[in-house]
Amino acid sequence: MSAPIVHGGGITEAAARYGGRLEDWLDLSTGINPCPVALPEVPARAWHRLPDNQTVDDARRAAAAHYRTNGVLPLPVPGTQSVIQLLPRLMQFHQGAGAAAGRRVAIFAPTYGEYARVLQAVGFAVDRIESAGELAAEHGLVIVVNPNNPTGRAFAPADIIAMAERLKEQAGLLIVDEAFGDLEPELSVASHVREQGNLVVFRSFGKFFGLAGLRLGFVVAPEPVLSAFADWLGPWAVSGPALTISTALMQGDTRAIAAGILERRAGLDAVLDGAGIARLGGTGLFVLVEHQQAGLLHERLCEAHILTRKFDYAPTWLRIGLAPDAAADRRLADALRRMEF
Amino acid sequence: MSAPIVHGGGITEAAARYGGRLEDWLDLSTGINPCPVALPEVPARAWHRLPDNQTVDDARRAAAAHYRTNGVLPLPVPGTQSVIQLLPRLMQFHQGAGAAAGRRVAIFAPTYGEYARVLQAVGFAVDRIESAGELAAEHGLVIVVNPNNPTGRAFAPADIIAMAERLKEQAGLLIVDEAFGDLEPELSVASHVREQGNLVVFRSFGKFFGLAGLRLGFVVAPEPVLSAFADWLGPWAVSGPALTISTALMQGDTRAIAAGILERRAGLDAVLDGAGIARLGGTGLFVLVEHQQAGLLHERLCEAHILTRKFDYAPTWLRIGLAPDAAADRRLADALRRMEF
Repeated sequence: MSAPIVHGGGITEAAARYGGRLEDWLDLSTGINPCPVALPEVPARAWHRLPDNQTVDDARRAAAAHYRTNGVLPLPVPGTQSVIQLLPRLMQFHQGAGAAAGRRVAIFAPTYGEYARVLQAVGFAVDRIESAGELAAEHGLVIVVNPNNPTGRAFAPADIIAMAERLKEQAGLLIVDEAFGDLEPELSVASHVREQGNLVVFRSFGKFFGLAGLRLGFVVAPEPVLSAFADWLGPWAVSGPALTISTALMQGDTRAIAAGILERRAGLDAVLDGAGIARLGGTGLFVLVEHQQAGLLHERLCEAHILTRKFDYAPTWLRIGLAPDAAADRRLADALRRMEF
Repeated sequence: MSAPIVHGGGITEAAARYGGRLEDWLDLSTGINPCPVALPEVPARAWHRLPDNQTVDDARRAAAAHYRTNGVLPLPVPGTQSVIQLLPRLMQFHQGAGAAAGRRVAIFAPTYGEYARVLQAVGFAVDRIESAGELAAEHGLVIVVNPNNPTGRAFAPADIIAMAERLKEQAGLLIVDEAFGDLEPELSVASHVREQGNLVVFRSFGKFFGLAGLRLGFVVAPEPVLSAFADWLGPWAVSGPALTISTALMQGDTRAIAAGILERRAGLDAVLDGAGIARLGGTGLFVLVEHQQAGLLHERLCEAHILTRKFDYAPTWLRIGLAPDAAADRRLADALRRMEF
């Protein structure tokens, strides 16, 4: 068992330490749309019955259109985390158990920590790389989060495909986690999965729609990989409400959701500009800032009951998510204004 | 990949074959309470945020009281199926990878088919046994569903504990699946888990409460097994709505739910008695009947748009679940009355 990673979203712990009622905290520690969309009606049968094939098929078709997969029917999974947990098994499946043992994993870093944690926990050697030039013949699995969390670094699809092509020569798989890709659909390689053969795309439902509690993600992958994941997760892996809600929302017009997120992001940018805080990167759903005293900034914000995300490995970084409205933007601005460094 | 098992709940497929609108079918093919309880209000944050530790802890404490675990905090999982999928890994974890390879699994059979499917798919040798006398020194994992699905066969807790004691001598684990145990709490061994050390109990939330679409189960197990399952499932495995709903319902009075189920079961018994159909066994949530022409009976009921569950391995058996109300009981009675054999 490996040590758990501290993720964003820990306002219970923060409130226990810094005081304040839970509902009075402003949680900017996640990359989740702070304005959850209105829930469509969930039919009683979605709660009552095990999700049937029809319900799953409807969700897959809606996701294929929404993520523009060029005909591949994405597999719904109970959160991307559930398939990250299965990557060691995917590595063995793709390479053959004996061959997998000698191969290494490359992860474009720094990034979402669960990839390295899960693979290292079962003994895989993980190389944290920064450029495609560091890829080697021993790499059987390569992981890139695009756009990246927390840096916002984005690879052009052509560069991703070039990497996949190179990996194909060495029977390597390329996982592209597009969890924060909804606002930059031009970055997605989901439409290339069908012809590429060794490309697997993870999509997250909850971040863009503001419904992370639902636990829903989708995998766009070649058929053998989809079948393997489906087999390993077993029947009825995703809840009925998650399937019916995602189907309804993906069939609707999502432009207003995107516009709302970008407006909130503009609000955050204005606050940071006003405070003179430098932006290092980000996506539509969060900003990564650089500050020489980021740890102190994090603590002072906690004292104002505003939670941001700091990083053990980068003491000058702070990730700041979107506030739900202009009043919350002002609260952040006021807290920053009162600070002295 | 192993062939999928045909489970109950396939009314979409049945309607495609026998006609009729989906909502006009009477689905008696499952063992789910046909009268789902009223949903408690789900707080907006349960949908919006990743489930935090507090939400999980509340669910665990409510489940500990509800299942009378004698202090063990059950681990919430996204359906019992999710941990059945992990049994091969549990076997390796408990026995050590090398030792596990030489050991066999014993399953009290016939029973829920997923146990054998999952274990055989990765190469474990599975013995289907009928009595504890068939247990052998090679058995590293033993599985008993109590009360059993579909036969309703019940083991007394003392007999289960005696088996666990015997298995302890050979470093064996005993899994007791109490998915249908809510109406017979006196059969449960959940309160013995703490002192037994090699006993693992699976509980299903959705069957008794009529909310199978939620995907929620609980594991009562010694701490190393709970930690291993938690580690393998990864963070946020269960949806926020599932956690908050189960907490609220388990903290409430469940006697009316039990009484409602038993009333529906009495209605089914009266129908079967009226039709002269012999009951072979069952639990509060279904009846197993024996009929020389069970296959034909199944088909005739399908023609009346009533779905029951037949079994490849037992051509004279039919499992019949509870109808939602007296009118549905009469519909079943009428359909049976019109048949001629």
